[in-house]
Formats: sequence, C-alpha cells, structure tokens
Amino acid sequence: MRLYDSSISGNCYKVRLICAHLELAYERHELSVTDRSNRAEVIGHLNPAQRVPTLVLDDGRSLGESGAILTYLAEGTPYLPEDRFDRAQVMQWMFFEQYDLEPNIAVARFLLKYVDEEPDPQLIEELQAKGHKTLAALERHLCEHPFLAAGKYTIADIAVFGYTHVADEGGFDLDAYPAVKRWIQRVQDQPGHVPIDA
Amino acid sequence: MRLYDSSISGNCYKVRLICAHLELAYERHELSVTDRSNRAEVIGHLNPAQRVPTLVLDDGRSLGESGAILTYLAEGTPYLPEDRFDRAQVMQWMFFEQYDLEPNIAVARFLLKYVDEEPDPQLIEELQAKGHKTLAALERHLCEHPFLAAGKYTIADIAVFGYTHVADEGGFDLDAYPAVKRWIQRVQDQPGHVPIDA
Repeated sequence: MRLYDSSISGNCYKVRLICAHLELAYERHELSVTDRSNRAEVIGHLNPAQRVPTLVLDDGRSLGESGAILTYLAEGTPYLPEDRFDRAQVMQWMFFEQYDLEPNIAVARFLLKYVDEEPDPQLIEELQAKGHKTLAALERHLCEHPFLAAGKYTIADIAVFGYTHVADEGGFDLDAYPAVKRWIQRVQDQPGHVPIDA
Repeated sequence: MRLYDSSISGNCYKVRLICAHLELAYERHELSVTDRSNRAEVIGHLNPAQRVPTLVLDDGRSLGESGAILTYLAEGTPYLPEDRFDRAQVMQWMFFEQYDLEPNIAVARFLLKYVDEEPDPQLIEELQAKGHKTLAALERHLCEHPFLAAGKYTIADIAVFGYTHVADEGGFDLDAYPAVKRWIQRVQDQPGHVPIDA
C-alpha cells in the first residue's frame, strides 16, 4: 500500500497507528501541509477532498478521509467491533472527532505551531472556546468509561487520540481534564503503540 | 425509537429519510436549533455533543451523529453495502460531507435563512468559497458516477443529499453543477423518498 502522508498531521498519524497495531507494511509518500499547490496533480484523482491521508491499495483503488481508512483497515480485527450497536458507537466518536474536535484543536495547533505568521487572536480565542467544550465532553465520558466505545480500545480511541494527545501544542492545558490524561496513558500502553513522530 | 429532531436540520432529515426507506416507525421530539439552552438537560446524557439528531433505541441505548445513526439503521440493508471496500467508500463520502460540506453549506443556509440578525458578509463569503470548492469536487465525481459509492444508492447519497439539495437556501446556485442536479433528481426518484418538510 502507499500512504500519502504528512509527518505532522494527526489525521495521518491515525492511519500510521492502526498500521502499527496490525503490523501492516506500506510506503510513505510525504506531502506538505503548508504548500498545497501540487495537491490536485498528485492526489486529485485519488481523493475528492485532495487531502492527506490518502491510501492507495495494492490493487490501485484509493481511499480518502482518515475515518474511512481506519474503518477499512480495522474491518475484521479487534479494533472494530462486530456488534451493530458497538460499531455505531465507534462511528459516533469518529464523527464527533472530525466535526467538533479536529476543526478546533487541530486548527489551533496548526496555526500556533506550523504557520509562520502571527495568528488572528480572535480566531485562536474562538478555537480555544470550542476546543475546551469538546474536551469537557470527552472528560465527562472518560470519567465513566475506560475507552470511548464498546468497552475496549478501538479505532474510535485512535481517531480521538490523534489530536487530543498533542492538544497542548494548540494551547490547551490538559491538566484540567484528568480522565482524558489517564485515557491518553491507556492508549499509549496498548501493544504496538507508536508515537506521532515515529 | 425516539428521535430528538429538528424539522429544519438537514442532519435530522438524513435520519428521517433512511427511516422512510426502511419503513421504520419512530416518535419525533422537536428541539429548537436557535435556542439551545435546554440541550444539556434534555439530551446531555444521551449524546456527548448535545446535538440533534439523537436517536434513542427501544432498549434505551442512544446514539448521536447523523453518520453513526445512518450506519446503525442501514446495517444489513441494501443502503449499506457488505463489501469492505464499498463500505469504506461510503464512509469516505460521509466524512467528507461532515468535514467539508456541512460546515460550509449548512452553516451558510442557517445564517441566511434561520438567524434574524444580518450575517457577517466576510463570513458568508468564506463559507461560499469553501462550499463551492466542495460542490466542484462532488460535480467531478458525479460526472462519472451515478451515485457516490459502490455503484448504487447508499447512505452516502442520503448523507450528502441532506444539505446539497437545499444549497440554494445558503446562496449556492446549483445551475453551475449539472451532474449534481441530475444526481439530486436520481435521489428524489428512489422508492420511499420523502422531502425534508415531510
């Protein structure tokens, strides 16, 4: 398989993490997340959103969207449950992450850490407010559950972990979220875990 | 089943549409999308994001996120394919919709049609630019495919149809996207189809 990748993207890291757990081999093809001028040319025919991660299977078929790629790779493994309700719960947290968490925490991190210009302070403030609301929702759930869905470690945890564990780089202090911090440790303790910079 | 619903929300409509196709009975419980002050009290324990749609099953278990609810209800029906790659393609378009399409087209529609105050013109301009980019990606795909994934009508089409067919209410002229318009007609021609205001 070939993964169109970015070493700093939490979305790409999710794919690398499930591949590490499943011991899947793949070729990494790094794309810039600051200069996107070659995107249409390189992955326009592979992914309608022209974003990384984009995965090309050995037979040439391709998939975009980290959540779809995780679902594909985890199908039939312990990381994606078979029970219909458990699966739907996994999906709930994955959609929650892409709709509520990523657009706030990942974008704040990107603007503060990877963009040269000084970011608009009002925008950062809005992203912080929305990001904290998301972290509070996570905290409430993780106070009562060891993992996000199905009572065990699944691709829902991988998806939410991607940016949550580097939220401090977006200016979020996780000390206010002790259950989230304990869950981060539980994820890092899973067999086959690799860090984002591996 | 009980659906915490909003008659104007495209996300809720997706759930009502799959229920119509599958002839599933449920009770509708309308929540306001402009006054959200009672959300924590009414659905805080049912959905971490405290948004509609939220579905409560007959056994009391609940699900949030339209994409997760669609997956749950369509499991084992023709609207969610069994093949692993086909399923992942369905998921790709559903994540694309929630990440790229909904935050631009649905938000522009909401600000222009359902909020009393005059919206910030710069924000509307940004939403328009990003929304048109999404519609162009849809158009490219639908020029070559009758439906979004797996060569047939699936929950991917339902998810993307939810806000695309009312994009004109967000100021998007669909005449520039003839393949999208033909696909909208194909979706409306499906057996059991119901309109958003049914």
